[in-house]
Amino acid sequence: MYDVTRIRADFPILARQVNGKPLVYLDNGASAQKPQAVIDAVTQGYAQEYANVHRGLHYLSNLATDKYEAVRGKIARFLNVPSEEEIVFTTGTTEAINLVSYAWAAPRLQPGDEIVLSIMEHHANIVPWHFLRERQGVVLKWVDCDANGDLDPKAVLAAIGPRTRLVAITHMSNVTGTVVDIDAICAGARAKGVPVLVDGSQAAVHMPVDVAAMGCDFYAITGHKLYGPSGSGAIFIKRDRMAEMRPFLGGGDMIREVARDAVSYADPPMRFEAGTPGIVQQIGLGVALDYLTDLGMDNIAAHERRLRDYARDRLAGLNWLSVQGNSAGKGAIFSFTLEGAAHAHDISTVLDKRGIAVRAGTHCAMPLLTHLGVGATCRASFGLYNTEAEVDALISALELCHDLFA
Amino acid sequence: MYDVTRIRADFPILARQVNGKPLVYLDNGASAQKPQAVIDAVTQGYAQEYANVHRGLHYLSNLATDKYEAVRGKIARFLNVPSEEEIVFTTGTTEAINLVSYAWAAPRLQPGDEIVLSIMEHHANIVPWHFLRERQGVVLKWVDCDANGDLDPKAVLAAIGPRTRLVAITHMSNVTGTVVDIDAICAGARAKGVPVLVDGSQAAVHMPVDVAAMGCDFYAITGHKLYGPSGSGAIFIKRDRMAEMRPFLGGGDMIREVARDAVSYADPPMRFEAGTPGIVQQIGLGVALDYLTDLGMDNIAAHERRLRDYARDRLAGLNWLSVQGNSAGKGAIFSFTLEGAAHAHDISTVLDKRGIAVRAGTHCAMPLLTHLGVGATCRASFGLYNTEAEVDALISALELCHDLFA
Repeated sequence: MYDVTRIRADFPILARQVNGKPLVYLDNGASAQKPQAVIDAVTQGYAQEYANVHRGLHYLSNLATDKYEAVRGKIARFLNVPSEEEIVFTTGTTEAINLVSYAWAAPRLQPGDEIVLSIMEHHANIVPWHFLRERQGVVLKWVDCDANGDLDPKAVLAAIGPRTRLVAITHMSNVTGTVVDIDAICAGARAKGVPVLVDGSQAAVHMPVDVAAMGCDFYAITGHKLYGPSGSGAIFIKRDRMAEMRPFLGGGDMIREVARDAVSYADPPMRFEAGTPGIVQQIGLGVALDYLTDLGMDNIAAHERRLRDYARDRLAGLNWLSVQGNSAGKGAIFSFTLEGAAHAHDISTVLDKRGIAVRAGTHCAMPLLTHLGVGATCRASFGLYNTEAEVDALISALELCHDLFA
Repeated sequence: MYDVTRIRADFPILARQVNGKPLVYLDNGASAQKPQAVIDAVTQGYAQEYANVHRGLHYLSNLATDKYEAVRGKIARFLNVPSEEEIVFTTGTTEAINLVSYAWAAPRLQPGDEIVLSIMEHHANIVPWHFLRERQGVVLKWVDCDANGDLDPKAVLAAIGPRTRLVAITHMSNVTGTVVDIDAICAGARAKGVPVLVDGSQAAVHMPVDVAAMGCDFYAITGHKLYGPSGSGAIFIKRDRMAEMRPFLGGGDMIREVARDAVSYADPPMRFEAGTPGIVQQIGLGVALDYLTDLGMDNIAAHERRLRDYARDRLAGLNWLSVQGNSAGKGAIFSFTLEGAAHAHDISTVLDKRGIAVRAGTHCAMPLLTHLGVGATCRASFGLYNTEAEVDALISALELCHDLFA
């Protein structure tokens, strides 16, 4: 039994008011709120158990190291990755994808080599590849979604040519909520010998992820969207790909020996983790994953499907509102515009006066918005603690916007 | 009046026991403990004021953005940087120096170009330059310190030749505590037209830093050593150097526009800050800098000089103990070995049984230890909350080690 009232009580911020109204937090696509267990783990980490990791032999350093390194296994189990040695800690998906771009792609790709992307990518899964285009003549091949927000996996596979060296694709759009058939894409790309990088920033928050079944080469997650601390995250990298990577960030912890004119590197995954890491953040991420696992990702997904269906129906009743993308299996993310003069920023401001937090803008997905033919949109993105009553609050506030701006 | 007893009460972890003894935390060179004000700021950030920054228009996003961006000014004032637009947020010094290496040096340096380093550098200020040696034929020119741990600034300046493109140098050794005459080096290098990168990881913790007076081009600090959260930090980059840099990490926030076959970038400093940053960590770092400023960096430095003098005298009384480096103006950092068979790791373990946390190993400074002719050492590194009684506890425990291992 998924008791959303009890779950909401785990998140202290949800009890607060904004502009004199109860907070209705519908900006989960940008970042999620944190349960008390995560906040407590961070507090405990600093107040009682803090030291630098890996390099010490004293009690606090060993304690912090044990707690920190245990998170690697938690992430591996959360994503169903066979070996925790295939998990590299990062500060989030942005650093993770840049790691792949700098450490794996940049030294391998030649001018004219191609990377296949969907038009639904977040800038974090675009700009690192633009660097390769600007700096070394790599070609970006884009695969469009249709007007419904659906992406045909066959179209992605058809875009793979003899020069394709990587498919870099999101598992779930942060704008339309579209869930990509990543299993089909991975299977097809594998048959063609092309590695696949999956941006799991959104998907891993909302559904069970099975990297082993998927068979991707890279799968990136970001902790702050997973109800964990800011600055936490990780990427799964298949062992074979890791062996092909050169170091990215240089510094302590990632070396074996340093001399004046020589350097040798630690074994993966440490080779890709330089300097003092986000110790307490990663420990907090581990607690967030425990929290999600205790609730059950299947249960969370079922709750969010109910929210999605309810919100989809209610939004469909507003005939002056245009929702971008209506893929059947989409997540509970709705980007929309109002007919007439109302700019997304104005709508967001009106909603905020009623305590409702949504995002307005281009959602770090300019190519998609251009493709869909819209400028800025408002986005309401739901999480595990949202309710149907909050959907009602959103609808009511949108009706007010319509009255104001129509 | 510097009341260390009152100050210690600000740090909850200092009240705890380790192995049944009161914690004596002498591992500040690796990472510092956090005052309650910092812990409270982090808790408050997550429990009441959390949202993603920059991209929202709703109340919580504006609140978090205001608090986060205010830290840029705090860092600028802490380092006496004229404009906060010359401050780039990073996850610490390691990322900061890699930023300079990838974004400024890599596209500019040609094979045979030289980088001048001191032998006292931390691996974070070595390995990024080794990458340039390995990948594009850059030459590393090393300047040695003498047996006392002193570095002659004239020797650094004498190492600058017509092919020198950068001097990359620490402000304070994390092994010997040597304070480098960075003003002389910056003035001399400036006269020769060579930019200077300063690794301020240690120095900024222990003394007032005046970047404007120093006239360096880059100055990196790391928050977790500054009594702030893990994963926080920043680098000062002179405006002229920033204009010469290409982007490093690609993703959200650092772009102006993204299209299928074109990308343009935000103005500095945002150009160098990709993706969701360490929001709450940086807010916590701001509070840590407030805490240090309230105590007064001059007062902290004076307290630590007293500790240094006391510890230096007492350690000098142990004639079976060998301290690495004894520079007159050094910080309160002591790396040492015991004559005879005792390995640094064994000493550290004995100390730990008495609740004393020191580091044992090569301190991410292998070239220096090789130069000094030692393998692993123990390192006791003091901070603003340490006391003469803790020096006495260290001495007493070292005498026990001598009895055990002699």
